[in-house]
Amino acid sequence: MERITSAKNSVVRAMRELKDRRAREATGRILVEGEVMIREALACGLQPFDLLAEDRFEVLAGEMAAAGARAYLVPRSLLESVCETRTPQGVCASFSMPEPLQPGAELPDAVVALDGVQDPGNVGTIWRTADAAGFGALLLGEGSADPLSPKVLRAAMGSGFRVPFGRAEPLGEALSALSARGYSIIASALDGDDFYCRPDPGRRIALIVGNEARGIRPEILARADYRLKLPMRGGAESLNAAVAAGIFMYDLINARR
Amino acid sequence: MERITSAKNSVVRAMRELKDRRAREATGRILVEGEVMIREALACGLQPFDLLAEDRFEVLAGEMAAAGARAYLVPRSLLESVCETRTPQGVCASFSMPEPLQPGAELPDAVVALDGVQDPGNVGTIWRTADAAGFGALLLGEGSADPLSPKVLRAAMGSGFRVPFGRAEPLGEALSALSARGYSIIASALDGDDFYCRPDPGRRIALIVGNEARGIRPEILARADYRLKLPMRGGAESLNAAVAAGIFMYDLINARR
Repeated sequence: MERITSAKNSVVRAMRELKDRRAREATGRILVEGEVMIREALACGLQPFDLLAEDRFEVLAGEMAAAGARAYLVPRSLLESVCETRTPQGVCASFSMPEPLQPGAELPDAVVALDGVQDPGNVGTIWRTADAAGFGALLLGEGSADPLSPKVLRAAMGSGFRVPFGRAEPLGEALSALSARGYSIIASALDGDDFYCRPDPGRRIALIVGNEARGIRPEILARADYRLKLPMRGGAESLNAAVAAGIFMYDLINARR
Repeated sequence: MERITSAKNSVVRAMRELKDRRAREATGRILVEGEVMIREALACGLQPFDLLAEDRFEVLAGEMAAAGARAYLVPRSLLESVCETRTPQGVCASFSMPEPLQPGAELPDAVVALDGVQDPGNVGTIWRTADAAGFGALLLGEGSADPLSPKVLRAAMGSGFRVPFGRAEPLGEALSALSARGYSIIASALDGDDFYCRPDPGRRIALIVGNEARGIRPEILARADYRLKLPMRGGAESLNAAVAAGIFMYDLINARR
């Protein structure tokens, strides 16, 4: 296997650039960090291109080569220059981007839509929770973090390769189209009705999750069929966006009232 | 108001050291960053000591001085050297530590106990969610992140000053004491029963949240009255610890079955 030691090597430079959204869109590639995530990407059928690994990942490097990747051995300092994590897990790889859902594509019965969720950790965590809860698609309205950034994909823990995502810009129009197809639009709102006393929203549901600071925009909130509020019993005025989304998603699927 | 420009100033150095647990324990002080959090700490009755602020925080500086603090004007570069956040919010202050619960203290009916939750963001987010859901105390078993670190307090968003915490080391003994006082011990376990089909655990409940990677230790799990599992409908094998804790807490309080 070829060994790279220079941080100026063209493969290394190209992979380092994948931290940047424009470079991802120009090349159609994403950066995947760590053995577990690389195996998830392979299992989900993404095409691997280049692998940078420390010596101890010989087995994985062999499997990646068999799947069509070029594998390179690199020193730790070089991995640190490519990866987003402070302590890289010894291996990273470039893959083909997962394909976003096309506008008008058939959607599963339960979907989650983000209205400007900005923190990559929150976007990834919501993606992971959607996968676990049984929400089958993630729709990203304007102003949300790029779902293909390494930070989002890391927080999504492989769910980013399993649960399809779609760009829903402008979000208002996407929600209208969902309404027309029989989806109930459900929003979290501070002046909403008690979440635990809600009527049954039916089989097809689209949950909107709002921005960390300003919540859901009023023009988006106006399109909701249900505005619901989680009870706040103590002194806290709000919840972390990913935690609130998790409580909503799990209850909506598992405790139809 | 006095102006400090040297990063070697003794007040500045003492505050910078509060990022370190030993310095916090030696001085009995914590570091609080940002105007919102400083106001929460004041409102919760913590004693302020020193305030470092950019010019625009004159009003807050006056209020802090009235509460007994010494207020200093500082340049941004100096705040950056003291604060944990990359883009500090222009003001930080040292306060007296919140008092932990004493062993044997009377506890509220619903408490959450951490078995080695290591990520400060998770500990703080669980604290914030406990406050919102109506869990009245946070118990920290061995190996959990220090609840008084700036990262935990920031994620707790003021709930760290409102919801009392206690050190529960060893956690096993603390759970035994809770059992003896009539608490049902509830654990999340991958081989547990369906969370949504659980029997009523009664009024007094202690929820255990496990470590991000290994979950709850077997010897702690053995003390649980209920081992429950959230359904995993998609491909995800687990949830983020703070999200899972939020789903458990909200459902346990609001949807007694």
